[in-house]
Amino acid sequence: MNHKKKVSLAVVKRLPRYYRYLQDLLKVDITRISSQELSSRMGITASQIRQDLNCFGGFGQQGYGYNVESLYNEIGNILGMANKYKTIIVGAGNMGLALANYTNFEKRGFELVGIFDVDENLVGKSVRELKISHLDSLEKFISKCHVDIAMLAVPYEQTPIVAERAAKAGVKGLWNFSPMDLKLPYDIIIENVHLSDSLMILGYKLNEKYYDSKE
Amino acid sequence: MNHKKKVSLAVVKRLPRYYRYLQDLLKVDITRISSQELSSRMGITASQIRQDLNCFGGFGQQGYGYNVESLYNEIGNILGMANKYKTIIVGAGNMGLALANYTNFEKRGFELVGIFDVDENLVGKSVRELKISHLDSLEKFISKCHVDIAMLAVPYEQTPIVAERAAKAGVKGLWNFSPMDLKLPYDIIIENVHLSDSLMILGYKLNEKYYDSKE
Repeated sequence: MNHKKKVSLAVVKRLPRYYRYLQDLLKVDITRISSQELSSRMGITASQIRQDLNCFGGFGQQGYGYNVESLYNEIGNILGMANKYKTIIVGAGNMGLALANYTNFEKRGFELVGIFDVDENLVGKSVRELKISHLDSLEKFISKCHVDIAMLAVPYEQTPIVAERAAKAGVKGLWNFSPMDLKLPYDIIIENVHLSDSLMILGYKLNEKYYDSKE
Repeated sequence: MNHKKKVSLAVVKRLPRYYRYLQDLLKVDITRISSQELSSRMGITASQIRQDLNCFGGFGQQGYGYNVESLYNEIGNILGMANKYKTIIVGAGNMGLALANYTNFEKRGFELVGIFDVDENLVGKSVRELKISHLDSLEKFISKCHVDIAMLAVPYEQTPIVAERAAKAGVKGLWNFSPMDLKLPYDIIIENVHLSDSLMILGYKLNEKYYDSKE
């Protein structure tokens, strides 16, 4: 049965969060949970939770709640957690190296197979047993290793150039850390990470709570 | 007039994105835009845009669209862009240094005033003209400099400990990069950045597009 067609992207965007919470519950051997309990843990309304989870089947039972493991597995299926993706990092500066050291990604199926930079002082150095390669070899590597995703942690001006090279060489997805909404005229999935958006939300909340007494 | 009370957090979360797009329009001297045009640029439905922007006043006019500058300023007001926040970074590893080098944050009003680490090899070194201080001096610094926000880029196990120290010393907000939903029994705003959530969404989209022909 294919549940995927019924799930909207708005719901999908909340699934990684459910997935994390359910994983935490499993770790402490909690086998079932009500939407109310999940609600108070996650800070999402119980009705939103029921609505979200109903999108892909009705695992919640009146008076029983959700079976944590089934729900966890089902969300994992929808998110394609069983899939493996080959990823590379372009840019071995601080952000690139920070990403390289997130072992969490591998647990989620994102295997790091290469790191690239133009800096001759970095090329040849090892990061988690991977040697940093020169950017010149990017295209050949992508094609030879069937790389799925390129994580872009290069300077702002370089981002569209490197993105285009990676796309032309055959990556299917780009994960972009430059503060721009990268768009390309290719059939490719792009996720732009805007760190400052999250900081601005934090600023907004602070403002509402502590500083907003002027008006 | 105080628009803020009318704006739900769900809408607020989309505002940084509007803000960025409107800023880009201003840069290329576009003074007005219809919800349809904004929709095709942003990949949000026009009706969602009208609904969002109606939440804080009706700047859109039939047959004219939105005045880009007014809208930009208004969203900036709601997000409290005129406010200045004093921030520190705890953890001068790759992620901490990557954050320190995001000059974008300063443009948004987040001034970096200190960086802390426990590593004696890092303490005393300079990052963007700021000397890295020892974590021992955290509390004194927070209280003396009236630090608003601590950005946490420390190892997983250290995160709750450092968070608690920062909270007790008086920071009002925490921006957490450890892959955990940090919670504290203090009156403090916490934004947890889960980078892997965004990567999982990318994986989901790839899966839907390229790999989902098995079922």
